[in-house]
Amino acid sequence: MLRQASTILTIRASRPGLHEFTDSARQFIEDSGIRDGLLALFCRHTSASLLIQENAAPAASRDLEAYFERIAPEGGPYEHEDEGPDDMPAHLRTALTHTQLSIPVRDGKLMLGTWQGIFLFEHRRNMPERQIVLHLIGE
Amino acid sequence: MLRQASTILTIRASRPGLHEFTDSARQFIEDSGIRDGLLALFCRHTSASLLIQENAAPAASRDLEAYFERIAPEGGPYEHEDEGPDDMPAHLRTALTHTQLSIPVRDGKLMLGTWQGIFLFEHRRNMPERQIVLHLIGE
Amino acid sequence: MLRQASTILTIRASRPGLHEFTDSARQFIEDSGIRDGLLALFCRHTSASLLIQENAAPAASRDLEAYFERIAPEGGPYEHEDEGPDDMPAHLRTALTHTQLSIPVRDGKLMLGTWQGIFLFEHRRNMPERQIVLHLIGE
Repeated sequence: MLRQASTILTIRASRPGLHEFTDSARQFIEDSGIRDGLLALFCRHTSASLLIQENAAPAASRDLEAYFERIAPEGGPYEHEDEGPDDMPAHLRTALTHTQLSIPVRDGKLMLGTWQGIFLFEHRRNMPERQIVLHLIGE
Repeated sequence: MLRQASTILTIRASRPGLHEFTDSARQFIEDSGIRDGLLALFCRHTSASLLIQENAAPAASRDLEAYFERIAPEGGPYEHEDEGPDDMPAHLRTALTHTQLSIPVRDGKLMLGTWQGIFLFEHRRNMPERQIVLHLIGE
Repeated sequence: MLRQASTILTIRASRPGLHEFTDSARQFIEDSGIRDGLLALFCRHTSASLLIQENAAPAASRDLEAYFERIAPEGGPYEHEDEGPDDMPAHLRTALTHTQLSIPVRDGKLMLGTWQGIFLFEHRRNMPERQIVLHLIGE
């Protein structure tokens, strides 16, 4: 019979950019005892986001970070500047990436591909604590 | 025991851009009687999209709208022009944002962060009526 | 009572770009016997992605492909080049589009709009075989 489990993961990034937390998601699944189902991840912020990306090449992460700095730069023609120069770019980079992800689970394992990791994409420089809700439905 | 509830929300935007409908999602959850679960939202269109964004600063919404007008502009080198100059940019802006969102629900409440709202992002100028499917699984 | 069904769909694209596979998703739903629920699709790769887009106008697909070639071009200032010139653009185009999608199902039918199709967006030129996990929760 299907059931559900839920937790809130708290992450404080050490610097802006991509921070992998795949292992925390794996631990939550293991603790839940649910073996087959769907894991939903939800980032409770508008200036940080989620991304599934290459987990083996640090240069790929650096290129991704630099790319989003180029296409949604600080110092653009923004009206909303009162929370600092990195605030509006943070909203734009969040809109272009993901606030939520759902990943199937089978035999107790996330169905990620070999090179996929789950990342928090921190877009602010002051790096507040971030909350990610993990919600698992399955059996 | 888990169960599900579903409805179709109809929205006609008053102008192109971001239109918050968080309260309609909250009302659907309340009416469903489901207290804990996962709410899926699905936009049945390819020229309007969904976005979770800052719900307090109108200037942030205006900056977001202006940004997508800049990076996916009208008058680009598009082949598909027969449905009007705002049609192909609408498809591009939809591809860059979101057709679907899933948000956890706990104790009858959407697990949104303090500053997060759920928005329809209308990309067309003729603003047809839009359908968003809400689907809630939980108990 | 809610239950779930799951499969892995394998697709090898004939060329880079958008490849519709809506019919394969429909077949999976029919085979599952589940009539009402939520279908999750998950692409197990970081250089190919998922997109719901216009299913009737080939010119719209060509414009979409050309657009992503322009905003995440080959030959950019990338550090990660060892897997070929189309690798880093593939990661960027994946980040800008979608690794996962969830679509409600009602009366045995995907709740897509009239003009919506589900596409694999292949970003590499060597076009390896791609795996998409389909996971359906419902009854």
